[in-house]
Amino acid sequence: MTRSPAPDLALAAELFGKLELMSSDPPGVTRDAYGSGEERAHALIRQTGRDLGLEVGTDPAGNTFVTLPAAQASFPAWIIGSHLDSVPHGGNFDGAAGVVAAMSVIAGFVQQDRAPRRPITCAVFRAEESTWFPASYIGSRASLGLLPPETLTVLRSDTGRSLARHMEDLGLEPERVARREAWLKPEAVHAFVEIHIEQGPVLDGAAVPIGLVTGIAGSMRYRDAVCRGRYDHSGAVPRRFRSDAVLAVAELAIRLDEFWEDLDRSGANATITIGQIATDPQQHAFSKVAGEVSFCLDVRADQNALLEIIHHRLLTLVDEISRSRRVSFDLRGRSGTKPAAMDGQMLRRLHDLAARKGIPAIKLPSGAGHDAAVFADAGITTGMIFIRSRNGSHNPLESMELADFHHAARLVAALVNEDDDID
Amino acid sequence: MTRSPAPDLALAAELFGKLELMSSDPPGVTRDAYGSGEERAHALIRQTGRDLGLEVGTDPAGNTFVTLPAAQASFPAWIIGSHLDSVPHGGNFDGAAGVVAAMSVIAGFVQQDRAPRRPITCAVFRAEESTWFPASYIGSRASLGLLPPETLTVLRSDTGRSLARHMEDLGLEPERVARREAWLKPEAVHAFVEIHIEQGPVLDGAAVPIGLVTGIAGSMRYRDAVCRGRYDHSGAVPRRFRSDAVLAVAELAIRLDEFWEDLDRSGANATITIGQIATDPQQHAFSKVAGEVSFCLDVRADQNALLEIIHHRLLTLVDEISRSRRVSFDLRGRSGTKPAAMDGQMLRRLHDLAARKGIPAIKLPSGAGHDAAVFADAGITTGMIFIRSRNGSHNPLESMELADFHHAARLVAALVNEDDDID
Repeated sequence: MTRSPAPDLALAAELFGKLELMSSDPPGVTRDAYGSGEERAHALIRQTGRDLGLEVGTDPAGNTFVTLPAAQASFPAWIIGSHLDSVPHGGNFDGAAGVVAAMSVIAGFVQQDRAPRRPITCAVFRAEESTWFPASYIGSRASLGLLPPETLTVLRSDTGRSLARHMEDLGLEPERVARREAWLKPEAVHAFVEIHIEQGPVLDGAAVPIGLVTGIAGSMRYRDAVCRGRYDHSGAVPRRFRSDAVLAVAELAIRLDEFWEDLDRSGANATITIGQIATDPQQHAFSKVAGEVSFCLDVRADQNALLEIIHHRLLTLVDEISRSRRVSFDLRGRSGTKPAAMDGQMLRRLHDLAARKGIPAIKLPSGAGHDAAVFADAGITTGMIFIRSRNGSHNPLESMELADFHHAARLVAALVNEDDDID
Repeated sequence: MTRSPAPDLALAAELFGKLELMSSDPPGVTRDAYGSGEERAHALIRQTGRDLGLEVGTDPAGNTFVTLPAAQASFPAWIIGSHLDSVPHGGNFDGAAGVVAAMSVIAGFVQQDRAPRRPITCAVFRAEESTWFPASYIGSRASLGLLPPETLTVLRSDTGRSLARHMEDLGLEPERVARREAWLKPEAVHAFVEIHIEQGPVLDGAAVPIGLVTGIAGSMRYRDAVCRGRYDHSGAVPRRFRSDAVLAVAELAIRLDEFWEDLDRSGANATITIGQIATDPQQHAFSKVAGEVSFCLDVRADQNALLEIIHHRLLTLVDEISRSRRVSFDLRGRSGTKPAAMDGQMLRRLHDLAARKGIPAIKLPSGAGHDAAVFADAGITTGMIFIRSRNGSHNPLESMELADFHHAARLVAALVNEDDDID
């Protein structure tokens, strides 16, 4: 084993600075998917790749690939990367941290003039955030030829133009995406590794800079549920006669939260969130018992079985509350994604490497979704590393220490340098 | 005691029919306060009064008074009546039942050519519903010279014109209302009696046509309360780190409801209603823990002390939940009205008369507000009679049986015929 080359931290700092400057949209940054914000960021990475003398490619969906060739080009490659789009007025690190880390690791090899045993590709995916188009992981799914063609017709809410039209306007090739052409062939991929800020407070709370992700949560969602009771006069109708939709949904929220508290104590990994709730502005009134409440439910868990346990509890509660409070629930369509486990061998290797290098790290599940879930679901060996962050994500206050970023990049540099041990 | 004259039920049916026809606005009826809907209805009552040969008067605020003179004109008068405005697309009986009952009682005296011992005035008040102008009991308060002059500047939401302007447009005299000129002088009023549909399901549930109102609830209201937590990623942030405003307001709703259940079992007369609730459409998202929830609270009770007990419980819960769920509440301004007890002697008399005439009646409090509260609060002897109704009120499905209406009118006819026993 050769000592792994140090990631180029100066390049990382420079890239973060340029990204922030070019996508500044106070408060925060905006890098709109398949728009000018994301496009400028991809151009920066392509130019940086060319400056380093690397192979730069773009697939039909506009994903960018910057590759350091290997001593043995025929070996399957390491793919390391993340996405460059942000939410509107978001932070500079969500997505970008993984891309910049990949570039700084590769630059470390270049500066030592070292050819790795396997090719190392920095993959920069498009449109990971579902805020622009109503779909997640558009770029990473397209890179594997897995994007359903009908996704190309979905509209970007702020422009009204379809995904295909956005691709065409950037000179990309949606018709090849529709044919499911894969730029990344699974047999040519050794493993996929994604670095990402945590987006949650767990590492910060534990005062640990690095998280080794055990799996990416799957979800069970009701985006458009409704509870119906009966509108009544708030003064004239006694308690026993009421069918109060506010109280019914409130009880559902509280009892689901109690169930979550139990699950939490048992060590199960799940989240249960009702993030939107509203009485009907056309019909509600200050002096009326509410006859209708709309709400949404977002449940995430690291195991399919756990999602089903929570779903069963939801249906039981809905049934009980419907009877006890004389209301009806219409949950409407269930949607969601499958949980994706990270590769166990990769996880142990990352854990060993962190210990050897004295990098404080803990294992934790990811409640948020990431491009890595697409690779794991496609049967590719996949790992994921979290960097401690503060103030969550998807907001201008999102923050990350460069020292923590450095730990993550060193860990990946060691991983891709040691691939002969991993085979 | 002379046998009381039978109320004119044919006139009542005719008036209900004409009112419904002239204010039809499918679904239901609309009689807009200080607008054409209410004005047409007042004109009908004025014309009916003139046709019966009665004294017809209009006060500066546009309230209509139709008076049957007494044998002894100097005696204080019976004032019987209610309002004629409706909510938009409301029912035909809320308010109108009391006016029509008063006219049918008076017509009964006219048809027997009987002069009562005291004058009997049918009072028709303007703008009882707070749906048009943001104030209740506008007409009845003005009739007693009790309307605060600043009320004249409030705007009617759908026209944008002030109350004073609406009065001027109908040829009324807002400047005299502003000087608090009283058309009804308390010393000239013997007692006020209002007939009204119940608006709640109590009489229907008990299968009793008539309710004798013990008091009109007062209220304690927070129309514009807000709970603030913190927006967080619904997948990435574990339970113990959250400040979820939806759960905080849900817990407040459920615990206030539990408190109400206890009060209810103890026999206390109160209602507690959260009729409006909403996460912030500008900031909420399907995949975010809710950082803010707005809501309103409407508490009613028949005793001031009970309102204060509930208020104390509210503040205690707000304090507890703020700490346990790491949120803050901003209840903003408290508003409300005082409970108004109906006159005990009048209540006993109505109870006796109902028993003597074989009219099934029970005593019950009124959770809804009524013009009668203004009279009771002004120190005038006041009574109130509920008629059983179905399907609540303030909606097109509101309904009332003419047979039940007849019971109420007979009760009032007996009351005003027996005034010599009451003094």
